[in-house]
Amino acid sequence: MSDFDDNLKALRDEIDEIDSQLVALLAKRLAVTTKVGVLKSIEGVPIFAPAREAALISKRREQAENAGLSGDLIEDVLRRLMRDSYVSQDASGYQCINPDCKKVVVVGGKGQLGGIFVDLFKRSGYQVAIIEQDDWPNSDAVLAEASLVIVSVPIRLTSLVIHQLNKLPADCILADFTSIKESPLYEMMRMHSGPVVGLHPMFGPDITGLIKQTIIVCDGRKASQYQWLLSQFKVWGAKTYQVPAHEHDQAMSMVQVMRHFSTIAYGYHLMSEGVDIENLVNMSSPIYRLELIMVGRLFAQNPILYSDIIFANPDNIAMMKRFAYRFLELLEDVESDDKDAFVSMFKQVSDWFGDYADDFLAESKTMLLKANELKKH
Amino acid sequence: MSDFDDNLKALRDEIDEIDSQLVALLAKRLAVTTKVGVLKSIEGVPIFAPAREAALISKRREQAENAGLSGDLIEDVLRRLMRDSYVSQDASGYQCINPDCKKVVVVGGKGQLGGIFVDLFKRSGYQVAIIEQDDWPNSDAVLAEASLVIVSVPIRLTSLVIHQLNKLPADCILADFTSIKESPLYEMMRMHSGPVVGLHPMFGPDITGLIKQTIIVCDGRKASQYQWLLSQFKVWGAKTYQVPAHEHDQAMSMVQVMRHFSTIAYGYHLMSEGVDIENLVNMSSPIYRLELIMVGRLFAQNPILYSDIIFANPDNIAMMKRFAYRFLELLEDVESDDKDAFVSMFKQVSDWFGDYADDFLAESKTMLLKANELKKH
Repeated sequence: MSDFDDNLKALRDEIDEIDSQLVALLAKRLAVTTKVGVLKSIEGVPIFAPAREAALISKRREQAENAGLSGDLIEDVLRRLMRDSYVSQDASGYQCINPDCKKVVVVGGKGQLGGIFVDLFKRSGYQVAIIEQDDWPNSDAVLAEASLVIVSVPIRLTSLVIHQLNKLPADCILADFTSIKESPLYEMMRMHSGPVVGLHPMFGPDITGLIKQTIIVCDGRKASQYQWLLSQFKVWGAKTYQVPAHEHDQAMSMVQVMRHFSTIAYGYHLMSEGVDIENLVNMSSPIYRLELIMVGRLFAQNPILYSDIIFANPDNIAMMKRFAYRFLELLEDVESDDKDAFVSMFKQVSDWFGDYADDFLAESKTMLLKANELKKH
Repeated sequence: MSDFDDNLKALRDEIDEIDSQLVALLAKRLAVTTKVGVLKSIEGVPIFAPAREAALISKRREQAENAGLSGDLIEDVLRRLMRDSYVSQDASGYQCINPDCKKVVVVGGKGQLGGIFVDLFKRSGYQVAIIEQDDWPNSDAVLAEASLVIVSVPIRLTSLVIHQLNKLPADCILADFTSIKESPLYEMMRMHSGPVVGLHPMFGPDITGLIKQTIIVCDGRKASQYQWLLSQFKVWGAKTYQVPAHEHDQAMSMVQVMRHFSTIAYGYHLMSEGVDIENLVNMSSPIYRLELIMVGRLFAQNPILYSDIIFANPDNIAMMKRFAYRFLELLEDVESDDKDAFVSMFKQVSDWFGDYADDFLAESKTMLLKANELKKH
């Protein structure tokens, strides 16, 4: 071996030794954060403590910068550690906000989203029952004891299921997890005279816990009676965001329906243009790679999931047509080589985004560095 | 203070102590990796060693899993550490692949992209000269000594600049960094009879180094004479990807022009629909937040940058029109409530994406967890 090889090997051995100490230190940290989880679970204190998180990070940033390290580096590492420590704390179980609650019934509790909540309710000491398709003949006894019924079924079955729920106890809370809110809320109010609330958990089944996740809440009836449920969500780490049902549906048509649809149309366009996907991936910068990921990920999933959402509300068709017409309208500027018109439109939209544009740019930089970090060769 | 408060404080003190040790350990690691950088720079060995990276990660994953930690956790942390260690190794300078090279001239070397390369050439021991707009009257002397001239100017000035470069030494390499390749390559070949190569660095000015970044190479003339340049890119950690100019331009029209344009159209649509952006952000799931980030980030940037790219090639107009028509065509399925047609189109596109769909889904999960991690409240 040459001197270079010897020297390199010695340094690499040193790095391996440090990395081994790193693993040991992280294991030690996990043991302590798990104890914090147990303690908080007994006391009934929320796991996610934003102020403590901010203080912890700022102290270490300062220490890191004094040691000649980048503050961003230690912040990124600590945030990653906290993600896992929340998961481990999660395992200690949660405080039960409403010990008087009789049965929690989750219709569709074996589905991916329903399952997450079944698990959380159980680990918080609630009695949970699940109703699946075949259980309806024997559901009366279960429903008669329910303090809370949550409908967590595919959007095309929501209305059908709600119509089965017309004999709930008067003080039972009826809630649903559908991704549209106006019509299920209307149906639930019609079928049940007790407390009603529309919920939309804004996350997919991949989450590792509810920390920092958002649940949208659309008030139905007798709101005071379901406040304990919202508090329970907060104990699990989620944020709730209250909004009228029609505002929810309008926003979702823009972020969910419209984005899904145009992403699908873009995938269809790529295919129809006869693009060589491998070539495209090889030529991608981090940002195009991220864009391609966001398109391709969709096509790894169940088409029914997307068609249900896209076909659910006919009002969205007109809105999406307006998008296509605007697209063609802007294309006319390109065709007539009118850069001034294009730039002035661009500036208008920039103004509309306001401070969010700069915030998003900063956030995207972190995401793009991360995307490049993930490349294996 | 209650028992709970006492106990929590004791555990938090323990965490702080561990985190403090963590910072010290990371500082120690950085000191060693910096030494590796110096060693490699003297020997002229590339900093990025994929095999070593993979081995290092797999060893620590195993140790972590044996210690009850998640393998993904340690891998994420190590990848983050490596990103910074590459930056620090970068600072040690690089091997000079072609010591016989006379001047490297970067036209537009004070621009963001040009500046990155000026810096890298200098730190690799090359003599670098910059030509900016005002320097043309005195450029003859500089160009007469050039072994390599790189045109790194806004796309609308590329042709104009290339036309100034008709008196280069016969063995001088002429290259450009424009984001289209066919027409600049044609112009360069016309103006200069020596070696010519079209380059497209697939990254923005935010990068922290060239490690794992891609540079697209479109051969022009006398390829053997510019191989040293491609080797120099590899020393800096970049991957080169060779492709004919027209294939490059076709791919870019899909990933760059089309994506930019439809993202801009989506921003314009959001504004025109009178959406409340704050409401939208508050209601966003991690994935919609990521989508919004990708839209908003664009509007924080210079519109000229985008209009130059979008207006550069009239061929793209017809392709983008086809997108709008396909969008409207798919919308007809929704209008006539033809879910079967929609699902069958979806499946066709899934097949077209092939294994990439699943790969992208897996990668997007990591990205979405990261996006949620970044939330501060």
